[in-house]
Amino acid sequence: MNYRLVLKLTGKTLLVAAMALLLPLLVALIYREDIRPFLFTLPPMLIIGGGLSQLSSSDHFFPREGFFAVGLIWLLISAFGALPFYFYGQLNPGAEFQSYIDCFFESASGFTTTGASILTAVEPIPNGLLFWRSFTHWLGGMGVLVLAIALLPSLGGRTLHVMKAESPGPVVSKLVPKASQSSKILYGIYCVLTLIEALCLRIAGMPWYDSMVNAFATAGTGGFSTRNLSIASYQSPAVEIIITIFMLLFSVNFTCYFLILRGKVKQAFRSDELRFFLLLVAGSILLITWNLRDLYSSAGEAMRYAAFQVGSVVSTTGFSTADFDLWPELSRMILFLLMFCGACAGSTGGGMKCSRILLVLKCVRREIRQIVHPRSVNVVKLDGRVVEEDTLRSVLLFFSTYMLIIMIASLILSLDNFSFTTTLTAVVACVSNIGPGLEQVGPMGNFSAFSGLSKLVLSLCMIIGRLEVLPILVLFSRNAWKRS
Amino acid sequence: MNYRLVLKLTGKTLLVAAMALLLPLLVALIYREDIRPFLFTLPPMLIIGGGLSQLSSSDHFFPREGFFAVGLIWLLISAFGALPFYFYGQLNPGAEFQSYIDCFFESASGFTTTGASILTAVEPIPNGLLFWRSFTHWLGGMGVLVLAIALLPSLGGRTLHVMKAESPGPVVSKLVPKASQSSKILYGIYCVLTLIEALCLRIAGMPWYDSMVNAFATAGTGGFSTRNLSIASYQSPAVEIIITIFMLLFSVNFTCYFLILRGKVKQAFRSDELRFFLLLVAGSILLITWNLRDLYSSAGEAMRYAAFQVGSVVSTTGFSTADFDLWPELSRMILFLLMFCGACAGSTGGGMKCSRILLVLKCVRREIRQIVHPRSVNVVKLDGRVVEEDTLRSVLLFFSTYMLIIMIASLILSLDNFSFTTTLTAVVACVSNIGPGLEQVGPMGNFSAFSGLSKLVLSLCMIIGRLEVLPILVLFSRNAWKRS
Repeated sequence: MNYRLVLKLTGKTLLVAAMALLLPLLVALIYREDIRPFLFTLPPMLIIGGGLSQLSSSDHFFPREGFFAVGLIWLLISAFGALPFYFYGQLNPGAEFQSYIDCFFESASGFTTTGASILTAVEPIPNGLLFWRSFTHWLGGMGVLVLAIALLPSLGGRTLHVMKAESPGPVVSKLVPKASQSSKILYGIYCVLTLIEALCLRIAGMPWYDSMVNAFATAGTGGFSTRNLSIASYQSPAVEIIITIFMLLFSVNFTCYFLILRGKVKQAFRSDELRFFLLLVAGSILLITWNLRDLYSSAGEAMRYAAFQVGSVVSTTGFSTADFDLWPELSRMILFLLMFCGACAGSTGGGMKCSRILLVLKCVRREIRQIVHPRSVNVVKLDGRVVEEDTLRSVLLFFSTYMLIIMIASLILSLDNFSFTTTLTAVVACVSNIGPGLEQVGPMGNFSAFSGLSKLVLSLCMIIGRLEVLPILVLFSRNAWKRS
Repeated sequence: MNYRLVLKLTGKTLLVAAMALLLPLLVALIYREDIRPFLFTLPPMLIIGGGLSQLSSSDHFFPREGFFAVGLIWLLISAFGALPFYFYGQLNPGAEFQSYIDCFFESASGFTTTGASILTAVEPIPNGLLFWRSFTHWLGGMGVLVLAIALLPSLGGRTLHVMKAESPGPVVSKLVPKASQSSKILYGIYCVLTLIEALCLRIAGMPWYDSMVNAFATAGTGGFSTRNLSIASYQSPAVEIIITIFMLLFSVNFTCYFLILRGKVKQAFRSDELRFFLLLVAGSILLITWNLRDLYSSAGEAMRYAAFQVGSVVSTTGFSTADFDLWPELSRMILFLLMFCGACAGSTGGGMKCSRILLVLKCVRREIRQIVHPRSVNVVKLDGRVVEEDTLRSVLLFFSTYMLIIMIASLILSLDNFSFTTTLTAVVACVSNIGPGLEQVGPMGNFSAFSGLSKLVLSLCMIIGRLEVLPILVLFSRNAWKRS
């Protein structure tokens, strides 16, 4: 393992994250709020980040360095990102954010775009801090390292391994040959889409501040809002529809937008995953609308609530306009199952990704065909191209590992003696980076009642889910720590 | 597809099942009960079975015929096995078993050794019928087809494919080269162990009838008892301990007993799966005992209850001596997770099997090692031997498919609008062939409240779980029905 290179990369990413802190600091200044939480956070980040980034090292980047660095950086960035919350808590003894574990949970939940909160009340928190909370969604959505690569082309080397380890999905699609160029394009599309959403929300009547914060939370598919009642508090069908559309837009593979920009519209929509995703969304909305038909005054209203919640869960955002915990069991179960599936690969959404579910289904069909026609050649295809056996194996392994992690985490969480539904859905909602689950962690609940151990486990689950398991497992493996 | 061969095998198996009906008929005669439920069932079985078994066909047996035949036979055997219950219901208008779907559910639950019941009260059912109910456990535990192969060596051909499709576990271990010989040995060990258990229970004070019925239910790891309160109703620690021990004995790969009989004791215990299983059982018992420390008067009592319930769930029997639905969440979660895992391969137990879980864990470790040391040779070993890549792939696929089936079934069941916990644990308890789940389907509950559709889905889940997914998928695939 090339530790020097890993640490150098860590340092540079910390510097980028420190830069990002200037934006909420500015917001705090505008609202004449206490800026000390940010001022206290900057020095440690700048000193450690600056020191590490001065390390000299070779540029030899192998997959293991990529996985290791990504795992380490996400743990550190969550730890440092928690500091503004922590300093705020220390400066305001009566307020929330008193324990560092709570702050770490909130920060990990932010960067991993989960949106699960330990706050019992969101409104008393100052604007600057809430801005930072949702801005972490935006940074984590596309990837902190991807941002670092986009801003600091000097990183050079074979940074593709880093992008691979941080980008969601079974196969990473290179837009252009150079990784730094790819990441610039991705962030460009990301910025433009975010700004368009913020503008739409502003036009729909939301204040500028709210529209920016909610646009960040939608773009990263995070779900931290500025109000206790989430999007329901705006009581505006226009806002709901805008956010529904953008949640779904941010669930789509960004390669699709890149192809559209290049004029290859036909090619952009020739994606098996996209078709599967749209089918899943449409089917779920129709079923839930049917299931809710007696709960709301009109079918249109039922569909608006259904569409918002399906979009929110499948994109793994976690916003809510209704307390879906009170919906009939079929709707609850559909939403629970969508939590596993999640969005498309290469989007800012979490979960297992539609392409993986699709590949598992194709593998099942192949297995049956193999039994019935043992001598025929059987390959699994996606978008018309043959998928390598290695990719299939890793998809199946991912699926199994994902489930095992949920099982182990549920076991630890059950020490807190909450109900079966609360325990299980809390874990799934965190691993899949959704945010709300059912019952006590439902859309009107929060994660404050869990023990410190459970909060740490859930924080780790969020990071494991966001990084798609392997980086964190590599980081914690004995083998990786041996000097090669 | 060689349909004639499939149908011939089906016919012969039906004849064997008809023979098995004579035993409960005898019991009904002894207790001077109405024997018409059995008399009405015999003619259709004998006529259809006799007719089909007269078909002439070649002996060419390929895996697809094995899977197809096993799938078909298990559906038919459940359908015919339901008839005694159904005729009883028709002859006694006020009694239970009025709808055929209920009877099919009970019969499928019997043969698949699930033990989930739609009966709200067990005691009013006549002895002959309860004997049949538990005897189906015994027949299904080791396999109906394996029995047919043992009794009718004339089946000949390459019956290994049939045993492969019916026997649980990722790899089928041939005891001796000939399949019919292997199945005779297996059934021999099975009979002896069952008789020993019945004898032990008799000595512990159970009446002969009860000890036979409960021994059948333990041997098949089924769980149908003769009392509403299951084993708790005997109020005898001796009975509980005997059954705990035998539940665990029947969870072990029968190859182990075969090796012991051959004097190869050391080799018998040199099994990674067995060690994993014992570790899992011991760990679970200790954790639950600790969790129950304040609920019972002494640690010994807590451990007795914990051991019984862990044995019952891990062996997928489903007996109960306490209402574990009332236990703290940690104990409930441990039992829920044990439901997925299940017993050892090559036993009569259900679930995913310990060896599969172990192999998935080894695959994860291999994947990490591969990233850290990309150029080293990485193989997965079990019992000191390299496991083929094909086996690993099918284990991972099995794990994923198992989860997908649970998800799809939960979705359909949620139409009944029971609670999340009831819905999910009902499905898991059926797919893994346990019997009781949590809340409404807990050890003191039953499955009677579900709709007809849900009961059919659950029945199919039980058969899918017992046959380890593929036979039923092959049976329902369009490809398999095309003439080759």
